Amino acid sequence: MEMLKIGLIGAGRIGRLHAENLVRRVPGAELVGVADVVEEAAAGLARELGVPRVTADYRELLRDPEIEAVLICTSTDTHAEIIRAAAATGKHIFCEKPLALDLAEIDSALDAVKRAGVILQVGFHRRFDPHFRRLKELIAEGAIGTPWLLKITSYDPAPPPLAYIKVSGGIFLDMTIHDFDMARFLLGEVEEVYATGSVLVDPEIGAAGDVDTAVVTLRFESGALGVITNCRQATYGHDQRIEVLGEKGGLFAENPLPHTAVLADQGGYRSAPLHHFFVERYREAYIAEMEAFVAAVRNKTAPPVTGLDGKIPVAMGYAAKRSFAEKRPVKLSEITG
Amino acid sequence: MEMLKIGLIGAGRIGRLHAENLVRRVPGAELVGVADVVEEAAAGLARELGVPRVTADYRELLRDPEIEAVLICTSTDTHAEIIRAAAATGKHIFCEKPLALDLAEIDSALDAVKRAGVILQVGFHRRFDPHFRRLKELIAEGAIGTPWLLKITSYDPAPPPLAYIKVSGGIFLDMTIHDFDMARFLLGEVEEVYATGSVLVDPEIGAAGDVDTAVVTLRFESGALGVITNCRQATYGHDQRIEVLGEKGGLFAENPLPHTAVLADQGGYRSAPLHHFFVERYREAYIAEMEAFVAAVRNKTAPPVTGLDGKIPVAMGYAAKRSFAEKRPVKLSEITG
Amino acid sequence: MEMLKIGLIGAGRIGRLHAENLVRRVPGAELVGVADVVEEAAAGLARELGVPRVTADYRELLRDPEIEAVLICTSTDTHAEIIRAAAATGKHIFCEKPLALDLAEIDSALDAVKRAGVILQVGFHRRFDPHFRRLKELIAEGAIGTPWLLKITSYDPAPPPLAYIKVSGGIFLDMTIHDFDMARFLLGEVEEVYATGSVLVDPEIGAAGDVDTAVVTLRFESGALGVITNCRQATYGHDQRIEVLGEKGGLFAENPLPHTAVLADQGGYRSAPLHHFFVERYREAYIAEMEAFVAAVRNKTAPPVTGLDGKIPVAMGYAAKRSFAEKRPVKLSEITG
Amino acid sequence: MEMLKIGLIGAGRIGRLHAENLVRRVPGAELVGVADVVEEAAAGLARELGVPRVTADYRELLRDPEIEAVLICTSTDTHAEIIRAAAATGKHIFCEKPLALDLAEIDSALDAVKRAGVILQVGFHRRFDPHFRRLKELIAEGAIGTPWLLKITSYDPAPPPLAYIKVSGGIFLDMTIHDFDMARFLLGEVEEVYATGSVLVDPEIGAAGDVDTAVVTLRFESGALGVITNCRQATYGHDQRIEVLGEKGGLFAENPLPHTAVLADQGGYRSAPLHHFFVERYREAYIAEMEAFVAAVRNKTAPPVTGLDGKIPVAMGYAAKRSFAEKRPVKLSEITG
Repeated sequence: MEMLKIGLIGAGRIGRLHAENLVRRVPGAELVGVADVVEEAAAGLARELGVPRVTADYRELLRDPEIEAVLICTSTDTHAEIIRAAAATGKHIFCEKPLALDLAEIDSALDAVKRAGVILQVGFHRRFDPHFRRLKELIAEGAIGTPWLLKITSYDPAPPPLAYIKVSGGIFLDMTIHDFDMARFLLGEVEEVYATGSVLVDPEIGAAGDVDTAVVTLRFESGALGVITNCRQATYGHDQRIEVLGEKGGLFAENPLPHTAVLADQGGYRSAPLHHFFVERYREAYIAEMEAFVAAVRNKTAPPVTGLDGKIPVAMGYAAKRSFAEKRPVKLSEITG
Repeated sequence: MEMLKIGLIGAGRIGRLHAENLVRRVPGAELVGVADVVEEAAAGLARELGVPRVTADYRELLRDPEIEAVLICTSTDTHAEIIRAAAATGKHIFCEKPLALDLAEIDSALDAVKRAGVILQVGFHRRFDPHFRRLKELIAEGAIGTPWLLKITSYDPAPPPLAYIKVSGGIFLDMTIHDFDMARFLLGEVEEVYATGSVLVDPEIGAAGDVDTAVVTLRFESGALGVITNCRQATYGHDQRIEVLGEKGGLFAENPLPHTAVLADQGGYRSAPLHHFFVERYREAYIAEMEAFVAAVRNKTAPPVTGLDGKIPVAMGYAAKRSFAEKRPVKLSEITG
Repeated sequence: MEMLKIGLIGAGRIGRLHAENLVRRVPGAELVGVADVVEEAAAGLARELGVPRVTADYRELLRDPEIEAVLICTSTDTHAEIIRAAAATGKHIFCEKPLALDLAEIDSALDAVKRAGVILQVGFHRRFDPHFRRLKELIAEGAIGTPWLLKITSYDPAPPPLAYIKVSGGIFLDMTIHDFDMARFLLGEVEEVYATGSVLVDPEIGAAGDVDTAVVTLRFESGALGVITNCRQATYGHDQRIEVLGEKGGLFAENPLPHTAVLADQGGYRSAPLHHFFVERYREAYIAEMEAFVAAVRNKTAPPVTGLDGKIPVAMGYAAKRSFAEKRPVKLSEITG
Repeated sequence: MEMLKIGLIGAGRIGRLHAENLVRRVPGAELVGVADVVEEAAAGLARELGVPRVTADYRELLRDPEIEAVLICTSTDTHAEIIRAAAATGKHIFCEKPLALDLAEIDSALDAVKRAGVILQVGFHRRFDPHFRRLKELIAEGAIGTPWLLKITSYDPAPPPLAYIKVSGGIFLDMTIHDFDMARFLLGEVEEVYATGSVLVDPEIGAAGDVDTAVVTLRFESGALGVITNCRQATYGHDQRIEVLGEKGGLFAENPLPHTAVLADQGGYRSAPLHHFFVERYREAYIAEMEAFVAAVRNKTAPPVTGLDGKIPVAMGYAAKRSFAEKRPVKLSEITG
């Protein structure tokens, strides 16, 4: 079996995570080059993982005919440009979310991908979580009949740096975006969004023009309803739960605990706090995501998360922002035209 | 200890429930008369519980100087009138929710109560549920610091008769009203309500002008957010859960199960379905509610659920109705003036 | 419906518990007399519950033709004598466990009951616990096919006074006896017992000739195995769980918690400690037990816990004592002859 | 970092499992040769994992100076001989449990290891399970004070082939052995064992001279008690739980579930069945075990499971066998002399 040769563009936290999985846990692929504008970052990671090639210029990797696919893990504002460049050289692409914060930029990148006929998979890793996958399977098997009401709880353990919040597009585009994707993954397309939020965790977040706690109501095209609750801080860890009520019953994906040990004493029963954050919580999901990308490229099959899957949650994020600003429900069609 | 003598007005389902608790499980009080426009209903219940006096006309009970308090368990449209009449005769009053569907009627009833100086307790039984009370205690003890986000799940096992829906004021006034009360009980006053809903359970409910599934977003005066999810049908029973996320952690009141037996086999682990509906789910709450009323009357102390507590959730219900009709968030002040 | 008139003999802790249930929570019966050698104890309880008759001499109650049944809640060494006396006057009998510590005494009491043709129900309250009953129903329904392995966990929150341990017959006769009864209730007759124990909680218990922690292995006549674990101290409350493994699956009766509220913070998830001890843990069971006794007497049906059910666990206790002393498995037939 | 070169001896199920982990999931080591008397088995595995060297004669691997360590995954009757041969060539050794069924053989193998000064780690994988490790940490931290009572539940999903049972030494030596190791790991040395068993799952197992369901009582040197329950069949999966009651509280390591999705409908709440068997249940433990071996060899530190740890559970197995045969508690010193 020929190994799939992959280049990594962007050696930051998420790039390292994918690189390690690719090298250590995903069979069938090989990481052959690392690019990062901070060349030492690329070099450090390459050394650690035994990757032969290092560069500060990602175009070098694109010029390498041996490389069949690239992972784009750079900052969001560079995604669209790199996608276009990679597509132009016929590379298959895994790109972190969001594809871009500008919808026209996303369209232009998706056009380039389409013209080049390459595979583009977008990094919505939660779709690969075994607990949520099981939920989706159960819905598909008809375990609850028609779904009526979706509830997504999604809290982070602590807010990101303010600098990040200022460029991320805000809570609806950097945090809720994952929940928007999950909502579509489980119950299909959304027609209307209503978002409300409050500054409760940190007034600095408010000063930066964002909220840190939000409730977003969804109306699906099917008539089903949904609600996403977000908060930038939950002291007990990365709280990630999903419920679906349907015609025949309810489904619940609870948080997996790091370990099952429970201590009972006069204060009651205590189990572990949750996995701290996404790196621990979604460890298996990230591996499965990379396996799925490698499989899609090797087998020339459709990726499990498409370019359109990358675009729509961004549009939903803008719908939420407008809803919050204008204090009214916003139809997705108002954003996507 | 002198027994508190009580008369029951309205011998329907909820009247019977309170009567049985009063007679069998609440010490310190005695049920001495039952009134119901359907005199046989009153007579049947009185016979069963050994109550000496039966009448089709509640005014007879009000004229009885021996009776110190009445339970008003009639249909909603008669509550305000009976409250006024009872207050006029100096009887203390326990009245089922909602006090009335007309806010002016409620004000007039509350005025009568105030003028007469009698005790009025409104029947929001969930406040007496031991699980929710523990949640409230933990909030009060500061276990989670400042509360930020409240989530109430409240599903019924099956829709009520259509005839009921047509006169109940609709889902926001007959079902969500309990959750509005709980929201205030736990996190204080609400400033703004946004409601959305869908007809998913039964098209007949839609034809009757109501929705059967709803998501209601709350903004509290404190800045905290809340969300209530309602559905008229959950096949697995009366699903009643509350979560509160706060500065220091999270609180969860889970559903109590009818029994703890679990069966494990090739299909996995199975525990019991939930208590079917409110009679079973809130059995202890109903007893505690009646005990609290008897205690308030005997000790001449403020009732744990006041007339104002009876009024505001009705106003919240109207805010939700207007929000749903006008597709916009509605301030409570728009309703209460 | 004529009320069943009952006399209480013994106004200590368990006598008060039954009396309160009878008066406040069990319909169809009336407590008409209380006897206690400490007459003030009888008088105090009678006053509290509005019972007309008080005596220091239980024979007075037995002479009262109006009284149809008695509850024997005195110290164990008086049970057999009172049973004989009660049977001789034709009273139906509810007697607390153990019937006696002397098997010949038990036989003599059971003979008297048989000759008199009265009903005798023995106070193994755990049989009426709704969780354990559901377990038994599931076994009876064949949910796990043939039962193979029974595990009973039974810990007390704290040791009883040493004075009690000295007269109780020791851990196997005062504590394990309930588990012996439960074992028979669920899986039928036991053939052989092996008991081991250790003094770990309190050396004074060892000095008094007893152990405070024990593991008892059972071999049922069916070939199934069982194991009972006992400890006099569990800081987190009255831990009472049962598991049964069978041909088709497993059954688990978990501890019911006092409330369902859970607090999550940096230390993890905390739920309530268990009900402290039997009064709280078995509140519903004690009521159901008394209802069952009243029903058996009123309907002249066999009691749900018979005299033989009262005797065999005592024999099992002696088998365990002998096993522990002689360090070998002991057949029940060695004790019962 | 120089890679540790390892040879695998025995390419059966457990050999494959370790080989895959070593190649795919354990950094710092390299599998360079596979030996199996069935050469095609060795060749097949080597091909799959890209291992260069294949042989039917394990001595070839031992003669290779490049190989620093071997994994012995052959049938139990060959372990001691291969250990002696490997030690003689200075190879470090990971050997599957049990070291041998003959205690003198074990002693001879341990002597060889000692003389050669090589590292020997025995394959008690459960010590590396994250749930059980957390339990041990909590005990070590004093969370429950002095441990008093240990309970190990250990059921397999289905019996092994009869042919295996006939050579395995029976349930106490092939199944309980893991629980004996766990008991020592958590609470220290055991003084006395009492074992009872029954043939309930399959009469053929009885015909083969073994039991399929067992209860084993332990008395630790500390005075603490323990009980192990074993059954060859639990339809709901590999049930592996541990409880410890101590002076200050209780500890519970529950079964981890394959996923957290729960379905609620009219039949109640259903969660997943357990991981089917050890390969799934202990996936992480097997990886951590191999990592620990690689680390011990690379760092020349004591292995986390020593030769003595390999011997004592075998002696405990013989004590259990004798106890069962002679129907009496057996001191471990009766076996170890």
